[in-house]
Amino acid sequence: MGTVDVTKLLRTAPVRGFLLDITGVLYNSSEGSDGVTIQGSVDAVARLYKESRVRFLSNESTHTTEKVVAKLRRLGFTLEESDVITPAPVAADYLRQRELRPHLLLHPGVSSYFPTSSPDANCVLLGDAEHEFSFHNVNEAFRALMRMKKPLLVTLGQGKFYQRTDGPTIDVGAYAEALKYSSGCDHVVIGKPSAEYFQYAIDAIGVPATETVMIGDDLISDVGGAQRFGMRGIQVRTGKWRPEWEHHPTVSPDLIVNNLAAAVNSILDAQQQRGVQNHV
Amino acid sequence: MGTVDVTKLLRTAPVRGFLLDITGVLYNSSEGSDGVTIQGSVDAVARLYKESRVRFLSNESTHTTEKVVAKLRRLGFTLEESDVITPAPVAADYLRQRELRPHLLLHPGVSSYFPTSSPDANCVLLGDAEHEFSFHNVNEAFRALMRMKKPLLVTLGQGKFYQRTDGPTIDVGAYAEALKYSSGCDHVVIGKPSAEYFQYAIDAIGVPATETVMIGDDLISDVGGAQRFGMRGIQVRTGKWRPEWEHHPTVSPDLIVNNLAAAVNSILDAQQQRGVQNHV
Repeated sequence: MGTVDVTKLLRTAPVRGFLLDITGVLYNSSEGSDGVTIQGSVDAVARLYKESRVRFLSNESTHTTEKVVAKLRRLGFTLEESDVITPAPVAADYLRQRELRPHLLLHPGVSSYFPTSSPDANCVLLGDAEHEFSFHNVNEAFRALMRMKKPLLVTLGQGKFYQRTDGPTIDVGAYAEALKYSSGCDHVVIGKPSAEYFQYAIDAIGVPATETVMIGDDLISDVGGAQRFGMRGIQVRTGKWRPEWEHHPTVSPDLIVNNLAAAVNSILDAQQQRGVQNHV
Repeated sequence: MGTVDVTKLLRTAPVRGFLLDITGVLYNSSEGSDGVTIQGSVDAVARLYKESRVRFLSNESTHTTEKVVAKLRRLGFTLEESDVITPAPVAADYLRQRELRPHLLLHPGVSSYFPTSSPDANCVLLGDAEHEFSFHNVNEAFRALMRMKKPLLVTLGQGKFYQRTDGPTIDVGAYAEALKYSSGCDHVVIGKPSAEYFQYAIDAIGVPATETVMIGDDLISDVGGAQRFGMRGIQVRTGKWRPEWEHHPTVSPDLIVNNLAAAVNSILDAQQQRGVQNHV
């Protein structure tokens, strides 16, 4: 793991809560299989459960939380389903609360959270639909927006791409931009980097934002989003991470580490040495 | 047709050249058939050929110029193939001159203009690929951009949508936005509203921009693009036209008419009455 200097990171406040992105941090995804665990992540998660507080904050919108957890368990992780936050069930609440009738363009893996598409839709709900992003389906979503008086697009995250074992893979944010450009719709994001979604996670973990770190592979959604919310953002050099991000013009992580294990062990070790309580 | 007041339009200079958009101005397109001629357009084109100068400036990127002309002839129009400008052959010249090796995502109808996709591509060429815009193909184009040192996207136009008889249909510009968002690539547009494309049309028609009008159904690509180039831009209330565009915050057409025939007849009649020569 090597030693990571966390002096600067810990200067402002101790870390008593860890929000972890899942894909690209715990494991790398792969089409048609469970993917590959990132080295040291299983032990890092186990250590967090023992010594601190942890929640999993994902923009995963291709599977139910239940399936995400089942996959992580098959990969060797021990974790509680109630500790995993994904955008689809949060979006389902959002739509219900506002009595929104969605036209859906989603991965079949999360359709169980939602009613069927409304013929009289007043919003389009877009997730990472993957192969459902056919020209026909994208055009139907566009037409649904064009029929609305005040076209509204709700998306499960706005990721640019994610890393699959066979290469970078275009994400829901691209299709959101496409629909916005052509329809001029308004856009609400349920997922990182939206403040509401980070608030949801902070409420769940029960640690103040100032004492919480977000660890992710996405510089914009994970690191930048967390920092804007008042958390510290840690970039891992796994998943979709790109070397050029380390000189990014607008987002500068509070810490850059080779992987999740390096971040977790360095922080917990340093706090132990200083006699700082890792728990709240 | 009614009378259209063209006094204001003709105040600056006579009109001696007409650039006509095709889809939504001459006819409305339809999937799987030739579409439907817009009332009065056949006679308007015939009158332009007799009394003035005319060229057809299209962003059509699903068929060769030859096929576009054949379709228009089946719909009743009389016109010369050499008077029709479409982006695909112009883009083929552009790529050759710059020795660009494209990864292609195009409608099969225009692939004959281009070599096959290069495995060592240094640009992505995107047209209105319609059903070829599958998730797989869009993602392959994205991955091609991500492999480039300086990712470059060349698109045949950047339309938001076009009107088909069965409804508005999302256009290449949406997919361009998607790829730009996810890859951070540079973007060159071959087609309206790019200045180079209007210059190409002005060279072809042989009339100064100040004495030329662009007649189109797209407020941004046709009307706004032409105006930025120093032409007058005329909006027709056919094709993709939308009522709300008549109070658009940034683009104000020099003339708004119900259809092509109204524009052509009003301008030519008015100039005849004033003894202004309609020809160059």
